[in-house]
Amino acid sequence: MSARLDSATIDLLGVLAYGELTAFERLASDAQLAPSVEDKIELASMANAEFGHFAQLREHLSAAGIDPVDAMAPFVHDSTQPNDWLEGLIKAYVGDGLATDFYREVSAYITDEATKALVLEVLRDAGQAGFVVARVNEAIAHDPAVGGRLALWSRRLVGEALIQAQQVAVERDALLELLVGSGDLAGITRLLTRLTDKHSERMASLGLSS
Amino acid sequence: MSARLDSATIDLLGVLAYGELTAFERLASDAQLAPSVEDKIELASMANAEFGHFAQLREHLSAAGIDPVDAMAPFVHDSTQPNDWLEGLIKAYVGDGLATDFYREVSAYITDEATKALVLEVLRDAGQAGFVVARVNEAIAHDPAVGGRLALWSRRLVGEALIQAQQVAVERDALLELLVGSGDLAGITRLLTRLTDKHSERMASLGLSS
Repeated sequence: MSARLDSATIDLLGVLAYGELTAFERLASDAQLAPSVEDKIELASMANAEFGHFAQLREHLSAAGIDPVDAMAPFVHDSTQPNDWLEGLIKAYVGDGLATDFYREVSAYITDEATKALVLEVLRDAGQAGFVVARVNEAIAHDPAVGGRLALWSRRLVGEALIQAQQVAVERDALLELLVGSGDLAGITRLLTRLTDKHSERMASLGLSS
Repeated sequence: MSARLDSATIDLLGVLAYGELTAFERLASDAQLAPSVEDKIELASMANAEFGHFAQLREHLSAAGIDPVDAMAPFVHDSTQPNDWLEGLIKAYVGDGLATDFYREVSAYITDEATKALVLEVLRDAGQAGFVVARVNEAIAHDPAVGGRLALWSRRLVGEALIQAQQVAVERDALLELLVGSGDLAGITRLLTRLTDKHSERMASLGLSS
């Protein structure tokens, strides 16, 4: 345990580091499925950017005397694998977008300024938004039935994210405390409203009903 | 077509760029199959290093006025996918090792000095060697039957590399010219001997018969 970072902040860095590592993996998998070399390169570039974020978080933890793998360990979990290229894109944008919004909210409660700056930096979009919206819009224009399938898939991702968040909340008191420590129920409700609004905006930009 | 780079050099940069991009993909896939988070991180780091090589080659081509995707296009091909984690490691070390040795030989014939320096830089091992040897040795110690299966897989990879090299040689006269332009058959034979020797060394370090 570091003198500099409290356990909630370590938890947050751990969950973010694991999230960036899996975002790297997911985008690299999407690169493999990409229908053109141009798309492959774009997705590999994004994967690379996510790995860069991971490396920054790992470095920050190590510098504070924390083993990054130990910090990540409570958050290692399997998640549903996309069945094809479009589902992979949706996961990278809708699923990761929801998580990113959530962690950006949490970052408001980080007391260490260097950590807060780093967290906001790694949460920046690696380019997924524009790329995914364009590709999904094209696919739906080409075959409208795709929209229904991807809307269902998105709902499944949201459900999975909620279950995952609940498990983390139950197991990691410190992280929960960081978020709800104020005991401000109205504040939590407003937070959920903001997350829901942003999720709906993403779905609308994709042409999907949320 | 650039005034600075001849067509053989453009071919070489194109085939290397595509090779680095697929090495990135392969190592990222291996990262997904990794049995521990530590291994996952190591493989993702190597994937990241390969992507950095790709980005350097792309930049070099663009700076010479060549479209990188056009340069890569003749060399885009599907290759046999590994069936599991160990086959993936063998492909990253034995398969890519053979290709790397070959391109290092070819680099001797590059006339543009900046290009030659870049090619030698991107051909440096991204850390696969030590990692793969340790993991494969452990796996064979644990279950000697694994050795036979992986030796067969290696032979398949070598066969595939030879077919691929042959196709490239047939289709890309300029690249072939770069290598055999001297018409020195004894030189080519010595080159093949050096490649075979290094391949046998890699197989021996893995505890596999070549």
